[in-house]
Amino acid sequence: MSKKGITVKKHDNFSEWYTQLIQKAELADIRYDVQGFIVHMPWATRIARTIYEYFEEAVEADNHEPMLLPTVIPEESLKKEQEHAGFVPEVFWGTEAGTQKLERKFALRPTGETQIYPMYSLWIRSHNDLPFKRYQSRITTFRNEMQTRPFLRGREFMFFETHDVFETHDDALKQIKKDMQIMTEVAQNKLLLPFIFLKRPQWDKFLGADDTYTSDTLNPDGRRTQISSTHDLGQNFSKPFNVKFTDKNGKEQYAYQTCFGPGIWRILASLIAIHGDDNGLILPFNIAPVQIVIIPILFSSKEKESKKVTAYCAQLRTQLQKSGYRVHLDSRDYLSPGEKYNIWELKGVPLRIEIGPREAQSKTATIVRRTDKKKTTAKAIAKELAKQSKIVDKHIKDNAHNYFKNSTKSASTFTEVKEILEQHRGFVIAPFCSTWKDGKPCADKLKEETTAHVCGTPLEEKKPKAACIVCRKPAQHLVYIAKSI
Amino acid sequence: MSKKGITVKKHDNFSEWYTQLIQKAELADIRYDVQGFIVHMPWATRIARTIYEYFEEAVEADNHEPMLLPTVIPEESLKKEQEHAGFVPEVFWGTEAGTQKLERKFALRPTGETQIYPMYSLWIRSHNDLPFKRYQSRITTFRNEMQTRPFLRGREFMFFETHDVFETHDDALKQIKKDMQIMTEVAQNKLLLPFIFLKRPQWDKFLGADDTYTSDTLNPDGRRTQISSTHDLGQNFSKPFNVKFTDKNGKEQYAYQTCFGPGIWRILASLIAIHGDDNGLILPFNIAPVQIVIIPILFSSKEKESKKVTAYCAQLRTQLQKSGYRVHLDSRDYLSPGEKYNIWELKGVPLRIEIGPREAQSKTATIVRRTDKKKTTAKAIAKELAKQSKIVDKHIKDNAHNYFKNSTKSASTFTEVKEILEQHRGFVIAPFCSTWKDGKPCADKLKEETTAHVCGTPLEEKKPKAACIVCRKPAQHLVYIAKSI
Repeated sequence: MSKKGITVKKHDNFSEWYTQLIQKAELADIRYDVQGFIVHMPWATRIARTIYEYFEEAVEADNHEPMLLPTVIPEESLKKEQEHAGFVPEVFWGTEAGTQKLERKFALRPTGETQIYPMYSLWIRSHNDLPFKRYQSRITTFRNEMQTRPFLRGREFMFFETHDVFETHDDALKQIKKDMQIMTEVAQNKLLLPFIFLKRPQWDKFLGADDTYTSDTLNPDGRRTQISSTHDLGQNFSKPFNVKFTDKNGKEQYAYQTCFGPGIWRILASLIAIHGDDNGLILPFNIAPVQIVIIPILFSSKEKESKKVTAYCAQLRTQLQKSGYRVHLDSRDYLSPGEKYNIWELKGVPLRIEIGPREAQSKTATIVRRTDKKKTTAKAIAKELAKQSKIVDKHIKDNAHNYFKNSTKSASTFTEVKEILEQHRGFVIAPFCSTWKDGKPCADKLKEETTAHVCGTPLEEKKPKAACIVCRKPAQHLVYIAKSI
Repeated sequence: MSKKGITVKKHDNFSEWYTQLIQKAELADIRYDVQGFIVHMPWATRIARTIYEYFEEAVEADNHEPMLLPTVIPEESLKKEQEHAGFVPEVFWGTEAGTQKLERKFALRPTGETQIYPMYSLWIRSHNDLPFKRYQSRITTFRNEMQTRPFLRGREFMFFETHDVFETHDDALKQIKKDMQIMTEVAQNKLLLPFIFLKRPQWDKFLGADDTYTSDTLNPDGRRTQISSTHDLGQNFSKPFNVKFTDKNGKEQYAYQTCFGPGIWRILASLIAIHGDDNGLILPFNIAPVQIVIIPILFSSKEKESKKVTAYCAQLRTQLQKSGYRVHLDSRDYLSPGEKYNIWELKGVPLRIEIGPREAQSKTATIVRRTDKKKTTAKAIAKELAKQSKIVDKHIKDNAHNYFKNSTKSASTFTEVKEILEQHRGFVIAPFCSTWKDGKPCADKLKEETTAHVCGTPLEEKKPKAACIVCRKPAQHLVYIAKSI
């Protein structure tokens, strides 16, 4: 492996592997001159764009319309919903313009609720307007995080959010199920990521929500990452922000609200962390900015044959582009084929085509899979690529789901929970306390002794016939426990 | 016309027409609670998205790769290029986080140069890296403008920018031509907008550029709007920001740079202003979020026939969607067909289909063009829609280009220039001063007496055999003069 490759193994030292991969696959540059703010390099920007496109398509199929609000929020709006005002300590403030102090300072948006709902109060009038479903995509959001990590946590991050308004709480709950279907469709079926839907404990919900539902996955170090959330806002925001409608009987009612946010950055981070291997990134075929890279194998001693290789490579590129593939021909003459292999393996391109004199002569292609490096030489090239791309995707998906399955264990005592968290990390499913109110002290004790969190309960809950792992009172819930990023 | 329609004529009172259209076609909401910041409504967001997509596709075909930088810029970077630091009076500053003052304040990006070039200095090493072409799209930018107008000038606006680096000035000049081709391809061929390429006078160029090349169009009130610019930055930024490369002889050189920015907002504003008519917006077929709206004509007295109409409308929608059209069926039962006509005319949907019992019975469609309201009843519906969409586009294009042509006059004396500016507005082409240095006082006098600007010279310049309209010395240039927005 060239010295440009990653020098640690993913499962030995995930943290260092991730740091090196981000840099060596040119995903982000952390040298930007404002602390906690990073530059997204072309490769990550293109992957993120496809993730955005998947979500845009999915929510529009569910009748959401796009809108775009300012990045700034007036102070009064931000503080209007009392619990939600808890965001304030993390907020960046704009206070000056030119050399003048502003009359009113503004917040850089930490999330959209408090800027969107004053507008909804103006736009929504009648039950005819409901359900009212809007979203913002490819926008930017700010929080003054103390610990930052590329794509996992930053002071500015890419954002996507839907904000929906309904006549009844029942309609709101149906939307929450729909949001989960969207996550399954995009993150599971398209990005091949494994995760579980959880309902967060009351003490860990979104500020101002009645309930928070999340999609949680696991990093290779066993730490839980939240990759989406839908909040059941009840009427908590519609009342302070005056989001009302006239019902069928002419009576004014406060609306019920939900909001859904897949974490574009977090999903990108999980894609990198879960699918990658010791040589770099591995991308599912549909999301790869380059699906197939063509590498010419030239011999300086054989000039005539090299010309044939060059010509055949260009012809093959055009042919495959016409077949609808995203193909790149790496014709840089100052890099060796081996160096190019390493570069494109780092970037996770699913299929590589090697073209030497033999292939040019026989009009074939030697196809190499990123996942297991197996080589196939094919005459019916486009057809073989379709087949190989499916093998790569199956490999990625099986790997990821097996890892997730194997990292989820059950336990019935505190000792067992501790042992699992120490040895295997990942999720531990365990019986937990009698009521959510009583649960908080138990969760605090768990966190104190293990640093792990009670992540929540799965949606199809079965009441366990067992005792709470902490207080040993009869348990009401089977919870997922894990250390978090 | 319903009271919801626009109450003034576009050519009588363009300013009021524009204000009403923005509101009544639901393009923007100016009631957001931070002055000078607006909300983009779904219709405008969708149109803008297509404009973005056109530019993304065009610059990527020209080998640009996307990247994404933070919204914030450190103070030192912003002030590094001396002339460019002239932006500072317009800059918003972030100075606090939570309740704490930040150690270093940051600027909210007014434009990208000073944040991007420090990174380029890290990324570019060798002539092998050049040309180096990157862009940012769908990002946000801030300037503390005193006068704001939706889509024409705002404190926060949608941004698109390419930033290119070359070995030689010649390469840079070739890119400037390429950027113009991109403008022709997108703004002229796809958005059907008329404009002219101009080279700005030296006193009106971008801060820090050697030369600024623009695309200028005309609003219906005859005022010039700049819809794109490419700046020839020479080595003005590469020197302070240290953007260097090792040339083929192993010698270190400062690079040559250009940047290109189509004004997404301005283009949207021009699309609205130039193509719209007294009834509202008129959208070119390819950019319309809804290309065809189906309006059922139901009669409450004829229940059985109405059911047939409803069923046929749904069937037709599915059929046309399958043919690849963006179709909307407006089945709202609380609005009359007439109210729906007005709404979709306001929004500029190019084709309307009216379906009553007669059409449902005969499996036909009555198609109405937005441009001239001419009706056609067709049996081969998809085929007829393709034909009608071309007629609409031709109408839009001819109208716009005729207007632009008729609003461009020639003059050879100051009196003539003044007369034209008073009567017709638009562009006046006139002979202008001996040197750019001498030109400034002449331009100032012109501005003082007419409020009009010397916009610049066309690219294929012919030296006029005439005297400068202001100072009467032998003229070196034929310039375009206009009042600006």
